[in-house]
Amino acid sequence: MPVPGPGYSITIRVEAPPSASAAGDLTSAVGRVGGVITAFDVVESHPDGVVFDITCNAMSENHAKDITAALSVLPDVVVRKVSDRTFLVHLGGKIEVSSKVALRNRDDLSRAYTPGVARVCQAIAANPEDARRLTIKRNTVAVVTDGSAVLGLGNIGPAAALPVMEGKAALFKKFAGVDAWPVCLDTQDTEEIIRAVELIAPVYGGINLEDIAAPRCFEIEARLREKLDIPVFHDDQHGTAIVVVGALRNALRVVGKDIGKCKIVVCGVGAAGSAIIRLLLHQKPADVLAVDIHGIVHSGRDNLDSNLEQIASCTNVEGRSGSLHEALVGADVFIGVSAPNLFGAEQVATMNSDAVVFALANPDPEIDPVEAQQHAAIVATGRSDYPNQINNVLAFPGVFRGLLDAHANTITDTMLVAAANAIADVVEPERLNASFIVPSVFDSAVAPAVAEAVRKAAIGEN
Amino acid sequence: MPVPGPGYSITIRVEAPPSASAAGDLTSAVGRVGGVITAFDVVESHPDGVVFDITCNAMSENHAKDITAALSVLPDVVVRKVSDRTFLVHLGGKIEVSSKVALRNRDDLSRAYTPGVARVCQAIAANPEDARRLTIKRNTVAVVTDGSAVLGLGNIGPAAALPVMEGKAALFKKFAGVDAWPVCLDTQDTEEIIRAVELIAPVYGGINLEDIAAPRCFEIEARLREKLDIPVFHDDQHGTAIVVVGALRNALRVVGKDIGKCKIVVCGVGAAGSAIIRLLLHQKPADVLAVDIHGIVHSGRDNLDSNLEQIASCTNVEGRSGSLHEALVGADVFIGVSAPNLFGAEQVATMNSDAVVFALANPDPEIDPVEAQQHAAIVATGRSDYPNQINNVLAFPGVFRGLLDAHANTITDTMLVAAANAIADVVEPERLNASFIVPSVFDSAVAPAVAEAVRKAAIGEN
Repeated sequence: MPVPGPGYSITIRVEAPPSASAAGDLTSAVGRVGGVITAFDVVESHPDGVVFDITCNAMSENHAKDITAALSVLPDVVVRKVSDRTFLVHLGGKIEVSSKVALRNRDDLSRAYTPGVARVCQAIAANPEDARRLTIKRNTVAVVTDGSAVLGLGNIGPAAALPVMEGKAALFKKFAGVDAWPVCLDTQDTEEIIRAVELIAPVYGGINLEDIAAPRCFEIEARLREKLDIPVFHDDQHGTAIVVVGALRNALRVVGKDIGKCKIVVCGVGAAGSAIIRLLLHQKPADVLAVDIHGIVHSGRDNLDSNLEQIASCTNVEGRSGSLHEALVGADVFIGVSAPNLFGAEQVATMNSDAVVFALANPDPEIDPVEAQQHAAIVATGRSDYPNQINNVLAFPGVFRGLLDAHANTITDTMLVAAANAIADVVEPERLNASFIVPSVFDSAVAPAVAEAVRKAAIGEN
Repeated sequence: MPVPGPGYSITIRVEAPPSASAAGDLTSAVGRVGGVITAFDVVESHPDGVVFDITCNAMSENHAKDITAALSVLPDVVVRKVSDRTFLVHLGGKIEVSSKVALRNRDDLSRAYTPGVARVCQAIAANPEDARRLTIKRNTVAVVTDGSAVLGLGNIGPAAALPVMEGKAALFKKFAGVDAWPVCLDTQDTEEIIRAVELIAPVYGGINLEDIAAPRCFEIEARLREKLDIPVFHDDQHGTAIVVVGALRNALRVVGKDIGKCKIVVCGVGAAGSAIIRLLLHQKPADVLAVDIHGIVHSGRDNLDSNLEQIASCTNVEGRSGSLHEALVGADVFIGVSAPNLFGAEQVATMNSDAVVFALANPDPEIDPVEAQQHAAIVATGRSDYPNQINNVLAFPGVFRGLLDAHANTITDTMLVAAANAIADVVEPERLNASFIVPSVFDSAVAPAVAEAVRKAAIGEN
């Protein structure tokens, strides 16, 4: 069940009578219907009345309406205006283009633009690698989507996906100084997406694919990696995989288990699940069981697509079949990137002792985290209101910072593993515990540590 | 002949003996080979020597080497390093992406990114026009090139064109607050360019085509205007045409002629020339003669392409044929966007009295402007070292500011004419004279005036 949060924060402007009880009446009314007040400001005060701005967190649009209604029925209270603070943040977009050079006078213009710029163009024409020195290519990443799998919203199209891509660009800059730009493509055709990214690539030092539906995303990524001389990273796959593998490294440190002896169940074999499995296999776990809506993935199952066939060929050494619940019996680790409410405490009880449960379906996890804690040693989710949030923000800014700094032409699993280890190692042994297996997304040490690890790995492979 | 300018500015660091004459010897040496010193700084001073930074303008790469050589042959002088100041301006690129929203804490993140952003996405999915309110689309322009006709450099390709597109983006921001982003396409196929621009369009409120070769540029622009619901503007065509028509309006004011009685010769019928002719025809001149490398364009000429055919059908009412020199006889106005040194003072003498000569070929005009002044009443060029510089910077920032503010879906000739008139009218009657027919590119009144004129025209047509 949702709780009131800042993602749904409204400011209600009300006129109230100048009575001593007015403020108390207003806050009680909001509290009665479950609103959480975060700010209460007096805007105007006259002998015949007071105007307040009441800012509060709500659960949903209907809840926001309930809160407003609860105020407007109070005697002598008039609601003047309701502002949605989330929408206010997005008005006019969240990023902008700034000039890094002065253009104050003719001399500036002659150097930055014509005629001086012509020599810079000629230098790059003569030596294309100079583009990484003399243009924005040194520091740019395209955030590319077709709008087909945006957050939990599904196929909402490129225009409606733009607010997410802008947010991503803002995070790139904030956490790693990377200049990222949204590329929202008005097509969902695999060939057209591949060709469009190829065509726009000269301006960028890296490509971050985002919110593109599986299985299309696999082919797009693989083909672009072949065609382009800049790294191509699908954040929904590799960003998630990096943070999961880093978090798991620390979780197993806490419970004192060796991954080589762990049986791991991965539930959900779309973009994220497939990438998690592939990255996990580099750590040589005892076994991985992939589970989708039809149960455990095994080579004998009907209608496996090429992705599932490949997964089947390198997981499930015992050739097991059956349901998720059966898969969990005797498992050391559960990693879910699938759907809400698939199992309960009684299934966790069938796992090995000191079980690790990463229930990452958003916003509602595969198992209620409080229930999971009854039998699991460690529980992580994708949510910010529980401990151990698995959040891609820990990975992608630092990953691209490192790739750009290395002038990398490609990205390899070695770099992804280096990034995962770097995230894990930001949590020092003395801070590490069952409720703190990953650093905070606001820990400013994370992106530089990830960048340095990726840069070193990239230079080692170039 | 080129003159030393800030587009070729170098800083030479030299060690010199601590003698009283050292500084004088150095500056004389630079002056002897024609370098123009713009700054002379002492970097270090010891009893046994002094280190100077000598900054000077040169004409060319060879000239810069000559200057350096002239210094290094002086007794006891050692050249430590030569820095090219133009390249320093371009290092790492000239634009960056900045976040407009705070991302300090969890609350900020919840509103700007997940989970809050989901509601903004849903709002746009439900009502696509909201993208102009809630995303960067409200203020963004794609600066699109295929690198096929960059400045006077020709077909240098998309990577080498990037420094120009970045400069353009910096100018867009500086003069009109527009967020422009470079799109350098790795193809020169008309169909692929059209499709790529269509695919990236959701992020932008306008498309500025740039440095795309004729005749490809005509089809690309026409087809994109049909397909897209945002304005498409080819700066090499319409930007130039706007400034030329604005400048001509003022030039005719100075000489007291009515355009309805003027014969105008336009030399060069590529992207710029064709657009100038089309915009001029809206002003109903007495006649226009289009001239290309084969002479005057007329319907009877062989091998006219579709662009020239269309030009022939609406110009040259008397059906004249012949050379440029023949075309000039009795003309009131010459507008050249073609090639250097096509005629001299004697041809200007054959034009009507109070002739107007716009010799815009860059860097070397169709006629030496000093020579042109012998018989012409008004001379304009594309160069910054003569009066009356015809510079697109006067047009494109304000044009797009106006289009974006109007939420325009298209751009029409009416808007282009409005922009031209606005540029002309920034020069008040008391400042208007033969050497001042267009405002300075640094006149901060120009872009707002153009924007307002375009916005009004756009709202009138929407």
